[in-house]
Amino acid sequence: MALPSSVQKLIKLWSALPGIGEKTARRMVFYLLEQNPSWVIEFAESTRQLAELVHHCSQCGSITDIDPCPVCSDPMRNRKTICVVETDEDCAAIEQSGIYNGLYHVLGGRCSPLDGQEIPPESLEKLKNRIETLGAEELILATTPRIEGDMTAYTVQNALKGVKIKISRLSYGLPVGGSIGFADRVTLHLALESRREMTEEI
Amino acid sequence: MALPSSVQKLIKLWSALPGIGEKTARRMVFYLLEQNPSWVIEFAESTRQLAELVHHCSQCGSITDIDPCPVCSDPMRNRKTICVVETDEDCAAIEQSGIYNGLYHVLGGRCSPLDGQEIPPESLEKLKNRIETLGAEELILATTPRIEGDMTAYTVQNALKGVKIKISRLSYGLPVGGSIGFADRVTLHLALESRREMTEEI
Repeated sequence: MALPSSVQKLIKLWSALPGIGEKTARRMVFYLLEQNPSWVIEFAESTRQLAELVHHCSQCGSITDIDPCPVCSDPMRNRKTICVVETDEDCAAIEQSGIYNGLYHVLGGRCSPLDGQEIPPESLEKLKNRIETLGAEELILATTPRIEGDMTAYTVQNALKGVKIKISRLSYGLPVGGSIGFADRVTLHLALESRREMTEEI
Repeated sequence: MALPSSVQKLIKLWSALPGIGEKTARRMVFYLLEQNPSWVIEFAESTRQLAELVHHCSQCGSITDIDPCPVCSDPMRNRKTICVVETDEDCAAIEQSGIYNGLYHVLGGRCSPLDGQEIPPESLEKLKNRIETLGAEELILATTPRIEGDMTAYTVQNALKGVKIKISRLSYGLPVGGSIGFADRVTLHLALESRREMTEEI
């Protein structure tokens, strides 16, 4: 007997998730089979809604179910500071730490030539326009504390040559080799507090 | 800004899965957000179908989308041998190894007093009836190679006192402390080949 085709198909789909191999995918699917079907249906419905309801903010590019997102439309936020992050996940991590009160700009990519990734050029263009529109005074580069993050930061700095704005980066209070999404609140706080201004020298 | 409520809800649902904490759940959800929405919808639909289409075989208790399951309705299978497993996942692992040609009986639970788990009594009753109906000659107990699996095996043996049938167990070719779902094909093969008959002494 092969497994029912619906089960086989689902195992294959689960295997595509990050960090999930075929055995773990099978374990997940068998776990779902043991649960109350109504829970599984709720789980499936919520996943579907993610694809249907959640989109990117037209201003900052972060995920949201309204447009502009609650941060961009909040009059209490400091509109003179923009925090540049690579991904939505990084944006959520900083926002949940509750220590930052400015706006965001989600690049939607990083410089990583080995993986064939780069910052979407339209994202850099949009950032330039936003800085002018907002009259922003400081740009905080919160890129991943790795070599790719360094390259991403310098690429952004380079793209903004001639634009009058103070550019700073999160300090290396972040554990090197880690990722922003997994940093704890205190580390994020230290890194934000001790951010240093970027000079033109690389 | 809090994350969109649909995203928050989904992270909570994902955290309920085995081996997935809140941070991993968040990573999964953000991964889904980066994918093509049509892929996410297919993933969600397949998960929903699992709850709606897959059920337990009325004969052996294993998961199936038809009833009786393909094993129970296959005239080429050896109907005199029943392999008793704790879970659907164990059943699938043995079946996928391709080395067993008899029928199955999925207990749907194991003896584990510390977790408050036991074998569903109706499952043991059903096993007794099946042995008589089929005129089965051998019962292979493929319980997990741990103390709970030992207890499960002895409980089954005990429940069948007076029933005339040869009872054997998979040998300890299985890595002790592991689980059947993660065993490789060769180990499963060795364990099946060197199964030993159970005597009344414990």
